Amino acid sequence: MKKIMNAPERFVAESLEGLVRAHEDLVVFGGERKFIRRRHLAPGKVAVISGGGAGHEPLHSGFVGHGMLDAACTGHVFTSPTPDQIVAAMDETDTGAGCLLIVKNYDGDVMNFEMAAEMAASRHAIETVIVEDDAATGPAVRSRGRRGVAGTIVVEKLLGAAAERGAELGALKELGEGLNARIRSMGVALRGVAMPNNPRETFDLGPEEMEIGVGIHGEPGLTRTGFADADAIIRRLGEAILAELPPELLGDPDLRPLLLVNGFGGTPPIELYLAYGLARRFFEAHGIVPVRSLTGTFVTSLDMAGLSLTLALLTPDQLALWGAPVATPALSW
Amino acid sequence: MKKIMNAPERFVAESLEGLVRAHEDLVVFGGERKFIRRRHLAPGKVAVISGGGAGHEPLHSGFVGHGMLDAACTGHVFTSPTPDQIVAAMDETDTGAGCLLIVKNYDGDVMNFEMAAEMAASRHAIETVIVEDDAATGPAVRSRGRRGVAGTIVVEKLLGAAAERGAELGALKELGEGLNARIRSMGVALRGVAMPNNPRETFDLGPEEMEIGVGIHGEPGLTRTGFADADAIIRRLGEAILAELPPELLGDPDLRPLLLVNGFGGTPPIELYLAYGLARRFFEAHGIVPVRSLTGTFVTSLDMAGLSLTLALLTPDQLALWGAPVATPALSW
Repeated sequence: MKKIMNAPERFVAESLEGLVRAHEDLVVFGGERKFIRRRHLAPGKVAVISGGGAGHEPLHSGFVGHGMLDAACTGHVFTSPTPDQIVAAMDETDTGAGCLLIVKNYDGDVMNFEMAAEMAASRHAIETVIVEDDAATGPAVRSRGRRGVAGTIVVEKLLGAAAERGAELGALKELGEGLNARIRSMGVALRGVAMPNNPRETFDLGPEEMEIGVGIHGEPGLTRTGFADADAIIRRLGEAILAELPPELLGDPDLRPLLLVNGFGGTPPIELYLAYGLARRFFEAHGIVPVRSLTGTFVTSLDMAGLSLTLALLTPDQLALWGAPVATPALSW
Repeated sequence: MKKIMNAPERFVAESLEGLVRAHEDLVVFGGERKFIRRRHLAPGKVAVISGGGAGHEPLHSGFVGHGMLDAACTGHVFTSPTPDQIVAAMDETDTGAGCLLIVKNYDGDVMNFEMAAEMAASRHAIETVIVEDDAATGPAVRSRGRRGVAGTIVVEKLLGAAAERGAELGALKELGEGLNARIRSMGVALRGVAMPNNPRETFDLGPEEMEIGVGIHGEPGLTRTGFADADAIIRRLGEAILAELPPELLGDPDLRPLLLVNGFGGTPPIELYLAYGLARRFFEAHGIVPVRSLTGTFVTSLDMAGLSLTLALLTPDQLALWGAPVATPALSW
């Protein structure tokens, strides 16, 4: 797998530099380039901070800006940022109202954000929201909770908007934890992924195979099956999502569905839009009519071919947060 | 090459349907689904219409909306839309001020848009702008003018903004033709592309090869060379761009450079941002400091891996048009 890269050890740093330079009106590097932060902090607002391994771009750095994140910490490819980076982000972006940490549910991330929170506890009020949206890793499969995947951008958008409107730390924590029951994602890979320092793919799919229930770190999915047409793929992802959402939410007529089709990095817009149309038909046939939509490449696994569907069932207040103004490198309206 | 697809003959139609359904607030199908148009036309404004083969998404349909295109006509994959589609778009979106056709310089597109203009000449005032930005197809290589590639979105953005501000047909034509000297693009492919109805790639690159000077229809480029590090690739693309821009523009201190890094469909954001950072360094080392930037996947060749750089040297008035509000599926600010 060829990559636009100078050297594996400079891959992440050079990409982050490009992102900052391309969006200098919105974001700047924090001290010692340990993180990327909003150019203009909003004093008195809770600092919303996230981060994770590189390789998922534009997550998280691309979502730093007005109405979303105040800072994002990036580790090596598929590797958590260090506690030191996270502490530095808190020290530089907490303007007095405390810090909300948004963490995808992977062991390394959870451990390092926890350690950072302990290290900084004497200087900052800190709450943490762990994102758990992956339909492939429900309680029957994984005891440590669902993985955090593409639904993370819904969590970051809603919490960022609420913080921008002045919500306090405790309210943000409550909002974030409530979102975990409402958001489910399910992914499929058509081609595996190669790390920058290794030309071999982490899993290898034949020309007639696909991998269902994949994560975003090159790990294998739930099952490998024969490649199928798009309707069959979408049905499979959609059914997994419906099976893993609480029935009382699925049956609640007051909730507002949001449908996200997310490309994993190697799948082009023509296919993502096709998937959106079929996913929309699938959910509508199940009585779920999305009122908001997003289609694009937001939470990637390097250049993996494939995509995920995310369905979020939002309250009217949450939907208003989704619609609130946002200005980041990767998401703006 | 696996694709998210039901059947080759439904690939384009199902993708267009997904795009429309994902962005119903902005766009609708025109009559008989021959084109996609703005949901809310602006009476008295020149209708700005473009189109081309499918496979380049989000170009052109993703750029329909306020401040950019009024309609986009999509053909089969890598195949021009028919004159009939283009005439229908003119008939439905011309609110009295005439139609400006924006056409990438490929024989099929130029021929079909010309034929449409002749067919509709009695009912509409029509002007055509042919986009020619490809640095790989200068006069020494191609007698029919440069191909239109990623620079097309700069042309569509500036002309769309000018039309939105009330510019008349003749002024738009003049603005559009003036842009051709100011915009140059150069692309590299890391992996070829397979059509929906054929699993074989149109050109086949080995693991240590790349193709320089590629177009966006799966055609081979200018030269095939050994794969190189990102700095070498960017230098090669950047030098081709500088060599093909008029020296008097390159030396004009009053011009405002815009730098666009465009992914071809299979290249992920982490690599595109890395390329942006290196391209920025390259041009700055040549005294060209971009004041506006865009990085993403805008003009694709299905899922081809690779990217192009585009440099545009704009007047202050043109830069203001770039900054004007825009609300389309793929570009909004």
